[in-house]
Amino acid sequence: MKNTFGNNISVTLFGESHGEAIGAVIDGLPAGVEINEAFISHQLDLRKPTGKISTPRREKDEYKFLSGVFNGKTTGTPVCVVIPNENTQSKDYSASYGKARPGHADFTAFSKYNGCEDYRGGGHFSGRITAPLVVAGAVCIGLLKKKNILIGTHIKRCASVDDAPFSEYINDIESLSEKSFAVLDDEKGAAMISNIEAAAAVGDSVGGILETAVVGLPVGVGEPWFDSLESMLSHGLFSIPAIKGVEFGAGFSCADMTGSVMNDSFFYENGAVVTKTNNNGGINGGITNGMPVVFSCAVKPTPSISKEQNTIDFINKENTVISVKGRHDPCIVHRVRVVVDSITAISLCDMLSQKFGTDWLGE
Amino acid sequence: MKNTFGNNISVTLFGESHGEAIGAVIDGLPAGVEINEAFISHQLDLRKPTGKISTPRREKDEYKFLSGVFNGKTTGTPVCVVIPNENTQSKDYSASYGKARPGHADFTAFSKYNGCEDYRGGGHFSGRITAPLVVAGAVCIGLLKKKNILIGTHIKRCASVDDAPFSEYINDIESLSEKSFAVLDDEKGAAMISNIEAAAAVGDSVGGILETAVVGLPVGVGEPWFDSLESMLSHGLFSIPAIKGVEFGAGFSCADMTGSVMNDSFFYENGAVVTKTNNNGGINGGITNGMPVVFSCAVKPTPSISKEQNTIDFINKENTVISVKGRHDPCIVHRVRVVVDSITAISLCDMLSQKFGTDWLGE
Amino acid sequence: MKNTFGNNISVTLFGESHGEAIGAVIDGLPAGVEINEAFISHQLDLRKPTGKISTPRREKDEYKFLSGVFNGKTTGTPVCVVIPNENTQSKDYSASYGKARPGHADFTAFSKYNGCEDYRGGGHFSGRITAPLVVAGAVCIGLLKKKNILIGTHIKRCASVDDAPFSEYINDIESLSEKSFAVLDDEKGAAMISNIEAAAAVGDSVGGILETAVVGLPVGVGEPWFDSLESMLSHGLFSIPAIKGVEFGAGFSCADMTGSVMNDSFFYENGAVVTKTNNNGGINGGITNGMPVVFSCAVKPTPSISKEQNTIDFINKENTVISVKGRHDPCIVHRVRVVVDSITAISLCDMLSQKFGTDWLGE
Amino acid sequence: MKNTFGNNISVTLFGESHGEAIGAVIDGLPAGVEINEAFISHQLDLRKPTGKISTPRREKDEYKFLSGVFNGKTTGTPVCVVIPNENTQSKDYSASYGKARPGHADFTAFSKYNGCEDYRGGGHFSGRITAPLVVAGAVCIGLLKKKNILIGTHIKRCASVDDAPFSEYINDIESLSEKSFAVLDDEKGAAMISNIEAAAAVGDSVGGILETAVVGLPVGVGEPWFDSLESMLSHGLFSIPAIKGVEFGAGFSCADMTGSVMNDSFFYENGAVVTKTNNNGGINGGITNGMPVVFSCAVKPTPSISKEQNTIDFINKENTVISVKGRHDPCIVHRVRVVVDSITAISLCDMLSQKFGTDWLGE
Repeated sequence: MKNTFGNNISVTLFGESHGEAIGAVIDGLPAGVEINEAFISHQLDLRKPTGKISTPRREKDEYKFLSGVFNGKTTGTPVCVVIPNENTQSKDYSASYGKARPGHADFTAFSKYNGCEDYRGGGHFSGRITAPLVVAGAVCIGLLKKKNILIGTHIKRCASVDDAPFSEYINDIESLSEKSFAVLDDEKGAAMISNIEAAAAVGDSVGGILETAVVGLPVGVGEPWFDSLESMLSHGLFSIPAIKGVEFGAGFSCADMTGSVMNDSFFYENGAVVTKTNNNGGINGGITNGMPVVFSCAVKPTPSISKEQNTIDFINKENTVISVKGRHDPCIVHRVRVVVDSITAISLCDMLSQKFGTDWLGE
Repeated sequence: MKNTFGNNISVTLFGESHGEAIGAVIDGLPAGVEINEAFISHQLDLRKPTGKISTPRREKDEYKFLSGVFNGKTTGTPVCVVIPNENTQSKDYSASYGKARPGHADFTAFSKYNGCEDYRGGGHFSGRITAPLVVAGAVCIGLLKKKNILIGTHIKRCASVDDAPFSEYINDIESLSEKSFAVLDDEKGAAMISNIEAAAAVGDSVGGILETAVVGLPVGVGEPWFDSLESMLSHGLFSIPAIKGVEFGAGFSCADMTGSVMNDSFFYENGAVVTKTNNNGGINGGITNGMPVVFSCAVKPTPSISKEQNTIDFINKENTVISVKGRHDPCIVHRVRVVVDSITAISLCDMLSQKFGTDWLGE
Repeated sequence: MKNTFGNNISVTLFGESHGEAIGAVIDGLPAGVEINEAFISHQLDLRKPTGKISTPRREKDEYKFLSGVFNGKTTGTPVCVVIPNENTQSKDYSASYGKARPGHADFTAFSKYNGCEDYRGGGHFSGRITAPLVVAGAVCIGLLKKKNILIGTHIKRCASVDDAPFSEYINDIESLSEKSFAVLDDEKGAAMISNIEAAAAVGDSVGGILETAVVGLPVGVGEPWFDSLESMLSHGLFSIPAIKGVEFGAGFSCADMTGSVMNDSFFYENGAVVTKTNNNGGINGGITNGMPVVFSCAVKPTPSISKEQNTIDFINKENTVISVKGRHDPCIVHRVRVVVDSITAISLCDMLSQKFGTDWLGE
Repeated sequence: MKNTFGNNISVTLFGESHGEAIGAVIDGLPAGVEINEAFISHQLDLRKPTGKISTPRREKDEYKFLSGVFNGKTTGTPVCVVIPNENTQSKDYSASYGKARPGHADFTAFSKYNGCEDYRGGGHFSGRITAPLVVAGAVCIGLLKKKNILIGTHIKRCASVDDAPFSEYINDIESLSEKSFAVLDDEKGAAMISNIEAAAAVGDSVGGILETAVVGLPVGVGEPWFDSLESMLSHGLFSIPAIKGVEFGAGFSCADMTGSVMNDSFFYENGAVVTKTNNNGGINGGITNGMPVVFSCAVKPTPSISKEQNTIDFINKENTVISVKGRHDPCIVHRVRVVVDSITAISLCDMLSQKFGTDWLGE
């Protein structure tokens, strides 16, 4: 289903960076969900470029619901949200058509679509298409909050600087939702930004790692095998441009552990089942065990850099060089954060509604 | 779709470790595909426990096609393959029901299925259920070979020992398919095995990392957003028990790169588009760029260990200790290898048939 | 998904008439559902050929659960049911390969599968493949009964004889479930059987119409547009071999009605919303309105007849004649009945679990 | 997937009759398909109300592509088409909220969506939502034409008048595509219109039957069981509001045939396989046999009539009467025609692309 994600609750993305508009159709939401416009705007703001470390392109991101919302509430029928493209400078891009920007989908899109792709600004492959995902995610985050399920993501590592680790999940998560550069330790954040600016100064970019915690999920969410929680979440997460790795709990570091260290021993604590370590990221056999679900995503450095790079001109079929002008971010890790939260929320709502029903999700 | 994976070509898994049989239904295969029984057996053997570093449980893994195969070829209608469970020792497990083996799905399955799960030997969550996946994968690997698309996986790291890296992909891959402990450097393999045996000697287990390369894929396979090649492959890979991380190309190490390093510059070389580095793992924008598709999977140490661990008894609702007796592997990394190859092949056949048609895939 | 039906609850069919076995994988059932073997056998008996008006082929239809059932209850993981093929007389068919039986899938299967189809006894297209559907349906009928949702189907018309109409739904339905030749008026049934025997005597066959009522469904089941109750039910019903028409409520006769007659006026009656007529078959806008859901299916006369027919030999590419020997039914309308009930139950359980959750369905 | 139809090629519908806009997202179209705006407008015109026998509501139906079209061709990424709602008179409806219009979804939508539905003008259940389906269908009809696959539908029966039957398929179909009131015999059409006007004069409405033929389909399209051509087409057709019956070939009249009459004998004629009768509607075993695919749809009389009807007020929970004022059609059979053609084309493109690949479909 290419551009559609989810089963009971699904999101279909459409749009190109410099086309008429971008948007999403969200189907399967319960009826009567209040649309919190302030929260949606807050979330969109988190995705927006800000400050020196972001592209000077400033979209208003004025979203509009074309359907599925009536009297401020969801109707239960498909919600179509569109965000018009206003501040487009297509001339930035059209002249350079054929010059594949390294790390981008220019060449693969040209090959796949036989030269019919809308190449302007990355077209359908632009990170801008994540904006309607954030709107859909904001609605789903709201649904989860009513069930006391909270999602929080921090910049675990960026530009070679580590953030402080999650300590007590719930407090950490509360503080993160307000920050545009989501770190647990603001000094570490300042160091990261300083390094980002240094990379920007030489026309380069940096990457990082986002770490997410979901607290409050009931035990028993997720399915064996192909709808394991890891499978469903990673499916969504890897659809975010720039994500090149996803790991749950200890992730790749489990390769160097022994079983006796990796296994999270269970205990009854005040009647509840808990583990003291959480190397499995709150998931056993693809199903939540009641501990926080924790995962990390690797975000590659922004491929658009002004530094000169070797590349091909696939129209003239020759080797050439490119210096990506236009307006770009030296780092997108902090902006990707809210997209990770959004797709996590959509996927969890989908899985919860399968177990408990769409009606329950709206209660 | 819980236990079903794939769209045009789909695999549905069923079975429990100690039930009557395990199996899979494979739908959407082209008609007329010759069933190579020797190759299927070879692949099943790769999954089987062997030597001192594996469980003494020896299943014959005698598979039988109940449907979809006629005169040695696929009919084009659903192929059901079953593998009877013969060498089951249910008494190993039934006495300890309620004692959650740490790192296993015992507690989550109990919670999800309200105590109705078949708990014997891990039931539906047993790694044994991957055997029919390997049969399905063997058929798909055969289809890909006819298109000169080859898949190879080596043990990149195990028990804290690194294998040699992939050098020239095609040669490496050819040699791997014959090895039951798939390393590129056999000395490193011997060191790994030695470390595995050391862990086994103290009743513990180890994990590792598998690295896979797919060569020969045409440019343009994969879809934007939710059917990106990364999304589809990770969805399948994370359904394999014990996989806790998946990364493409440079993966998590991209977090410490700059864009100018991470971006894989394009070149025309003898008329073909190539990149000199392959940090993006052969995928730009979710779509193959013609370079080998490369990814790694983190495999956690086998959770079943004889060392005593703290845990709960969820029937009697009390804390207790457990020493997992039964028959277990101190390492499953080498056995998971063929499962990774299998699910990769299934997913690629599915995506190729979408683009080129089911008929083409069978040609 | 070719041979898979359903979303939250899905059934995947496999098998060929004269292969090793036929079967189904049922995924998404709640855990803890008691398997009522007597009821499953009763339902399978309704599908079996009986008496002079049926084929002398007598399958024992001994089903076996390979997975998903433990201690007599569903585990919540996929249920695989298989029915071995025992009483196969492949020699009946193999000699005549190439001679397309008119009204059968011989020629289309040959064309679609390039001559690789298992042609024996109709292969995967045999009506026999509905037997595992009946097992799946029996489980779902049981789930619905616990919610006081009842399904009943009678032979509305057969061999040019009309049955009495449904009068009071619930009583009618109760009486039907016990009958192997399900008519409301047994005298009409006797007349039908007499006509069937007359057709059989001259080597011919007859068709008919089945009418189904579902009572007890809550208001609000079904979705707008593509998951309308009509869409979902007809999708399943038209997968039954021999079904050539499906109509809801007044169906085709609505073509001759005026709106004022067709519209079912609403009334409050003892606090409940009812309609006096039910021309819309209990469905408005694709969604149940609380009245019985009523639909009819046209069942074509059995295509296998001993009368000589013109046809082609698609191997030798020449015109020829055929007289279908083997073992066949002069009428299958009464046997199709339980298949209609089964697929209706599966589809309703799927839609109910979407709305109320899988957990609810199992309560 | 509620409001999404199709697998490889899918259409997602959104919108409410009196909301901001209605639209569709069409995913999976090949790249490079020329958008024939004149043909799209022609098809939309066929759906529009015209003359005395239609509602005076005159929408411009000015569609706009928000995405997926670039330089007049499809890009291969999702096409979003929107049609703004301009000529809405919401006051017609709001005052009467709670009074369920008989035959409409007012009561079922209210029940399903807990009173949160956009009730204005039927909301998401309005026949108006079929307009973007017609746009999607126009693109798919164009794809099929390039493969010499033609779809034609005539009004087989309306207001108790029969049209002439299909005679030679191809000629009939060519003539139909130009007519806004698609009959084969214009005198019969005039009689139908006269009867429609008579019904309108007394504030009532009429229904009818549409018969569709698809010529040029290759042999072998359709799948066994749940993706039978009948299953897939009926799924789509029953999603059209007002369709209450679907039959293939002889359909319900097969109930009165014998097998020897119903079976369509095969012949070689000039090297091609043909049948002389086509009672199976060009489909054996769910798969095309090369003969025209023929089916009929029953269209119920427009439920909106000005005649006074009994009904309920579900807000005040009392019995009442209603006379539907507003702007309505005494007959919609002729307008539904192009919707039937559209959904047929979408479904066929989906099934063809599965067999032959998306790339082939665009050639």
